[in-house]
Amino acid sequence: MSNNANDNIIIKKSETSKIDSVDFENLSFGNVFTDHMLICDYKQGIWEKPVIQPYEPFLIDPSAKVFHYGQAIFEGMKAYKDGNDDVWLFRPDQNYERFNKSAKRLAMPEVPEAVFMEGMKKLIELDKQWVKNEVGSSLYIRPFMIATGPGVVAAPAQFYRFMIILSPAKAYYSGEVKVIVAEHYSRAANGGIGAAKAAGNYSAQFYPTKLANEMGYQQIIWTDDATHTRLEEAGTMNVFFRINDTLYTAPTSERILDGVTRKSLIAIAERENIKVDVRPILVEELIAAAENGTLQEIFGSGTAAVVNPIVGFSYKEKYYELPKQENSLALQLKAMLNNIQYKLAEDTFGWTVKI
Amino acid sequence: MSNNANDNIIIKKSETSKIDSVDFENLSFGNVFTDHMLICDYKQGIWEKPVIQPYEPFLIDPSAKVFHYGQAIFEGMKAYKDGNDDVWLFRPDQNYERFNKSAKRLAMPEVPEAVFMEGMKKLIELDKQWVKNEVGSSLYIRPFMIATGPGVVAAPAQFYRFMIILSPAKAYYSGEVKVIVAEHYSRAANGGIGAAKAAGNYSAQFYPTKLANEMGYQQIIWTDDATHTRLEEAGTMNVFFRINDTLYTAPTSERILDGVTRKSLIAIAERENIKVDVRPILVEELIAAAENGTLQEIFGSGTAAVVNPIVGFSYKEKYYELPKQENSLALQLKAMLNNIQYKLAEDTFGWTVKI
Ligand SMILES: Cc1ncc(COP(=O)(O)O)c(C=O)c1O
Ligand SMILES: Cc1ncc(COP(=O)(O)O)c(C=O)c1O
Repeated sequence: MSNNANDNIIIKKSETSKIDSVDFENLSFGNVFTDHMLICDYKQGIWEKPVIQPYEPFLIDPSAKVFHYGQAIFEGMKAYKDGNDDVWLFRPDQNYERFNKSAKRLAMPEVPEAVFMEGMKKLIELDKQWVKNEVGSSLYIRPFMIATGPGVVAAPAQFYRFMIILSPAKAYYSGEVKVIVAEHYSRAANGGIGAAKAAGNYSAQFYPTKLANEMGYQQIIWTDDATHTRLEEAGTMNVFFRINDTLYTAPTSERILDGVTRKSLIAIAERENIKVDVRPILVEELIAAAENGTLQEIFGSGTAAVVNPIVGFSYKEKYYELPKQENSLALQLKAMLNNIQYKLAEDTFGWTVKI
Repeated sequence: MSNNANDNIIIKKSETSKIDSVDFENLSFGNVFTDHMLICDYKQGIWEKPVIQPYEPFLIDPSAKVFHYGQAIFEGMKAYKDGNDDVWLFRPDQNYERFNKSAKRLAMPEVPEAVFMEGMKKLIELDKQWVKNEVGSSLYIRPFMIATGPGVVAAPAQFYRFMIILSPAKAYYSGEVKVIVAEHYSRAANGGIGAAKAAGNYSAQFYPTKLANEMGYQQIIWTDDATHTRLEEAGTMNVFFRINDTLYTAPTSERILDGVTRKSLIAIAERENIKVDVRPILVEELIAAAENGTLQEIFGSGTAAVVNPIVGFSYKEKYYELPKQENSLALQLKAMLNNIQYKLAEDTFGWTVKI
């Protein structure tokens, strides 16, 4: 292992690479990690120097608060390679900002921009050969922070660890997606942590999603927990509904994650003169539109899948199939967004950042 | 290190003990752990043989799902020593049952009774000298389970680790406790995981609790997240309100933890002909009772503090001080419960289990 320290980041390079053992044609999402990872520890008020080192398990105390009280947040972003083998990030400022909002909501320390941004860029640079130059291929970036401080008293920890790990990703194809509209279970409370990318939000969804899977549905569209009358978002995606030629999506709130893909699609749609109406959407409006034939499309938006068309949904044990689209807005928007991300179209928004 | 394997549990005894370095007179809750811990791993459908070994940090993959998706649950119980140096558990069946309910809600595997119960007993036996024979002193027991399975796809893990760690505890004295009634933030959603002892529920409370602390309140009494009109529970305690001579406590629900202390106090109160009314309690009833002088006491109930009298509460920026009690029901019930736990009174309920 060779050690290189520059002013800000300590780099311990791996002597070997796992890359030749990876089947890049048959990657399943999120299971393979690159050669390196970044670690930055926070000890009683001070962020230490970040370390980039070989990806490997690390030691942690059994009483670390992440295990007992769920202080854990994350982000999900991607790096894309263009035709010149340059690597690009997409709106990393948005993820950085959201990360620190999540940190605040969970009483965790904010991560300095230099640690998050410079750390991420240095790490990706080192594992650059893991990013493949092909539309659909990308490097999924997972910054996260956990409470490493020990003790089983229910109070915020004094010690935290910020990390970044990288996972090469193929085009996210998950087959036909059918969803179920939530009638009983919920992912987030009013005044809760739904708007934070907090680990605890996801474990809450697994059991209801398992029940949905058993009934033949891949995902759940969550509704507001108090009345189950308003459509909110899916497990890891925001949701758009196309009725006639207008796209509808719920406003973000303290229950709903402010998705980067969602807001980018809204901006692109507006540029393309596609009407987008951001307002609460009632389940009964959805049913009425499905019944009178004006409901054209439903799709999810998120970093992993980009845009995920939905073929039908179930509500109160009735299944509503969506019409097949010749000219789906979902796929048009997906192509326009991908073209910006892979530098195949002009980035009129200034969203892409070169590494 | 000596290795002893019996049929069911592998025991690796620590060669030395930390016990002489511990100041048992000045323990702060949950910061000191005993010499041993129990580990039992679950791999794709099978629970391996539990191992009792020296307490120490363990290795875990950076992509372990506990860090990213919050699959983590726990229990909190205590062991008590009687005058004959025998060690007793209090209603461990209740914690075991609740643990597996939590597991189910988080799509985690249920832990076999032999692993949980026999493992716990063997572990406590080994660290028996850490339980002090004195009312108020006890050994806090923390069984927990985390998702160790790797991968950043948002779905339940394939690998889990069940652990038990032990922490010697003194009488839990936290000074005068003033609480604030939640008006905006919430700990649990309808159809969420509030009734599970899930790690994610606690991190959600830290930031609002920090805000409360800054205003001079130690805890929050949570209200229902939809309307904030019904009193539910505190951060780690259920809550009782005494109006005239009746105790009121909210019914448990999918938002409220079914506390073992709460149900034990209800049973003792009923035995003592103290009237207990289990029904939703409105914030406005509490205010009315405080204003007309019928509100006598508020107290929290939980394993750590047993019974925690509250001296006053704040709602809509107004502070309501509770009357001083000559003959507090809180302290009477606490004494009766403690007497059962420490074997100073007959256990008419059959709650105590000898190790
Ligand atoms: C709950 C939830 N909603 C929506 C999204 C989409 O957000 P983004 O577009 O920033 O990836 C995510 C993240 O992937 C998510 O976890
Ligand atoms: C949220 C919450 N409510 C109530 C309680 C009290 O439960 P028990 O009496 O079983 O300790 C706890 C646990 O300590 C808790 O975490």
